[in-house]
Amino acid sequence: MEKRNAFYAQSGGVTAVINATACGVIETARKHKNKIGKVYAGRNGIIGALTEDLIDTSKESASAIAALKHTPSGAFGSCRYKLKGVEESREQYERLIEVFKAHNIGYFFYNGGGDSQDTSHKVSQLSKKMGYPIQCIGIPKTVDNDLPITDNCPGFGSVAKYVAVSIKEAAFDVKSMAETSTKVFVMEVMGRHAGWIAAASGLAKQDKEDAPHIILFPEIPFDKKLVLKRVKECVEKYGYCVICVSEGARLADGTFLADSGNTDAFGHKQLGGVAPIIADMIKQEHGYKYHWAVADYLQRAARHIASKTDVDHAYAMGKAAVQFAIQGKTAVMPTIVRTSNKPYKWKIGSTTLARVANVEKMMPRSYITKDGLGITERCRTYLQPLIKGEAYPPYKDGLPRYVRLKNIQVPKILNTKFKI
Amino acid sequence: MEKRNAFYAQSGGVTAVINATACGVIETARKHKNKIGKVYAGRNGIIGALTEDLIDTSKESASAIAALKHTPSGAFGSCRYKLKGVEESREQYERLIEVFKAHNIGYFFYNGGGDSQDTSHKVSQLSKKMGYPIQCIGIPKTVDNDLPITDNCPGFGSVAKYVAVSIKEAAFDVKSMAETSTKVFVMEVMGRHAGWIAAASGLAKQDKEDAPHIILFPEIPFDKKLVLKRVKECVEKYGYCVICVSEGARLADGTFLADSGNTDAFGHKQLGGVAPIIADMIKQEHGYKYHWAVADYLQRAARHIASKTDVDHAYAMGKAAVQFAIQGKTAVMPTIVRTSNKPYKWKIGSTTLARVANVEKMMPRSYITKDGLGITERCRTYLQPLIKGEAYPPYKDGLPRYVRLKNIQVPKILNTKFKI
Repeated sequence: MEKRNAFYAQSGGVTAVINATACGVIETARKHKNKIGKVYAGRNGIIGALTEDLIDTSKESASAIAALKHTPSGAFGSCRYKLKGVEESREQYERLIEVFKAHNIGYFFYNGGGDSQDTSHKVSQLSKKMGYPIQCIGIPKTVDNDLPITDNCPGFGSVAKYVAVSIKEAAFDVKSMAETSTKVFVMEVMGRHAGWIAAASGLAKQDKEDAPHIILFPEIPFDKKLVLKRVKECVEKYGYCVICVSEGARLADGTFLADSGNTDAFGHKQLGGVAPIIADMIKQEHGYKYHWAVADYLQRAARHIASKTDVDHAYAMGKAAVQFAIQGKTAVMPTIVRTSNKPYKWKIGSTTLARVANVEKMMPRSYITKDGLGITERCRTYLQPLIKGEAYPPYKDGLPRYVRLKNIQVPKILNTKFKI
Repeated sequence: MEKRNAFYAQSGGVTAVINATACGVIETARKHKNKIGKVYAGRNGIIGALTEDLIDTSKESASAIAALKHTPSGAFGSCRYKLKGVEESREQYERLIEVFKAHNIGYFFYNGGGDSQDTSHKVSQLSKKMGYPIQCIGIPKTVDNDLPITDNCPGFGSVAKYVAVSIKEAAFDVKSMAETSTKVFVMEVMGRHAGWIAAASGLAKQDKEDAPHIILFPEIPFDKKLVLKRVKECVEKYGYCVICVSEGARLADGTFLADSGNTDAFGHKQLGGVAPIIADMIKQEHGYKYHWAVADYLQRAARHIASKTDVDHAYAMGKAAVQFAIQGKTAVMPTIVRTSNKPYKWKIGSTTLARVANVEKMMPRSYITKDGLGITERCRTYLQPLIKGEAYPPYKDGLPRYVRLKNIQVPKILNTKFKI
């Protein structure tokens, strides 16, 4: 049988290590040229497949591909574009198969979160029915750490490390100035539904009096009275108070705190995030001087402070995906299986796409302290290994040397256009 | 003559490397025990001197002092507390001399910005008049880089590196998602009066199409029409637009942009910083999806990505200050003198405190492009060496090992209290 090509796409919000996964996929495929032809990447994710905008990764040098391992973001472009259900928009799936057929693509690697695993799953089912079977392998990725089954998601460990390091550093700063200046510092982190990233800030708390003193999770309804009381206690006891708040922090009725702010004279919602709202609330009640930070994309792009464990996981997932394909598997996703906490050990596992599609893994209640404002030892034990190790990128003239690929397009074969 | 002790205090906003300066002071003093007795640090800066709250640094181990070199923030506490003029509050100066006398302090090392150099200068003049001469040595420190005479200020190089690295990483992220998601990213940085930190973001722009595409300086009045036009051009040409805005960006009439936002129903000023205001302005005009970040303290505390050059400068300033004292100098401040750009070379210089007190060094107009939205090659040549080199702290379990000193108080001698 003729050797078939592979399609690889990055989906959804990018991370500091999704390119390490791409590196794992491409380097492993290159080692099995007898089984896998070329690796084509979708320009801007699945959109590249729909529009037949494929990137020929064989045009990139070995060193450029190796440099993906230390380059944040999505090297081929990613997208926020969710394929609808098969019944709703069968033509999208048919188009995918059409493009795959045209380019002799027999392997579909989709690197993303829960939505993407759902898409891979649907493609695997449909392609069979349409008489053009493709091996569909999902590859986990999400800073939110909210995929089920896998112990953790590549991308999360590095955000976790960034957040823990940053809040530790900022807390040192605030503490040293608190006598005459800022007493309250609020840092807002990502996590609309799940509080994993906010929880990671808790790793900075190595002694009882250390920051963060308060963590606000989306999973726990915001209790204004309790939080204000705790802030006062911290300032009186330690001289300062540091808070990490998840962007998804919400009231008991489900309203996001970020949406609970005042509207301006034109009826616009407050522009800021949730950090300034919390900070102002404290100022109103206690009069403490405050500062706040919103790290936003800085946190998920921060390859300069990536977790080595996370980079290793990300690469391994890409490598395993290709090995699964070579073994003839389909409709599966490699997973990270933790086999020991101390010392931390892990291995590659696998699950079916059906089991991970569209499932969101929230923080277990047992990972959050009774008062809802901190993490438990159990949570710490889970999180700690994920931020372990440094994996610094190379530098030149004071800046990281991140790679920009040539991203050369595969000549189009189809005459048809497809409207996105 | 009896050996005299030294007083060292950290003043104003702390930095990622001010403790490296403290390390330079203490390690150098320890090498000259025949000349200098103990080094007493002021707890919370000059307030420690006024309240006779002195820290005995001789109680700290050599390894704890060495660890200061890689620990951000102010290890002894800093303060925002400016001594008034001698005529206005002579009792403050008299109190300082009283405490210095009581503890046989003959050297006054004051580590801060322009205000602090002014204080050192006044103390040096007054102590002579009061018959208790003290050698006063200022030591430069400020993330704002706004001290005159010295080529640059310790603290700035590390913020500059953090900002350049962060905006480069975020830009990679935005670019890879721009097709279907965020097209405009705004990052707010420190700098109320001088645009040095915002300028440093320009180092990330290594090719014409690279981010940041727009830099907004406090020195250049904000031109809304021009900025909105430029944003559109960038998005149409490159697919995205990244902006770095100084917190001090202002309108032609001097109003801070951050203060130009709407007030809420209660007449409160908008809570956010200037980044959300710029982002919203663009959304209103062009409808582009945006994200914004406010790094706040994260930027000046970010020891994890400190510039090696900056750490070297900071340490050298502390060391030179002690050497100046041993040489019998007073009312002076060590400076950094650049002797060559390529390769970057520098040496220690010195200036009188009178020349640096209360002078603010703004960005020269020649460092900003004609359109006011970027940096020139001349500026790049100046900034580039300052972010050079990495000086990573040691890590344990995924987190930097920053030191907490014991900070043991020197027994009080005076019976008097002093009200701050």
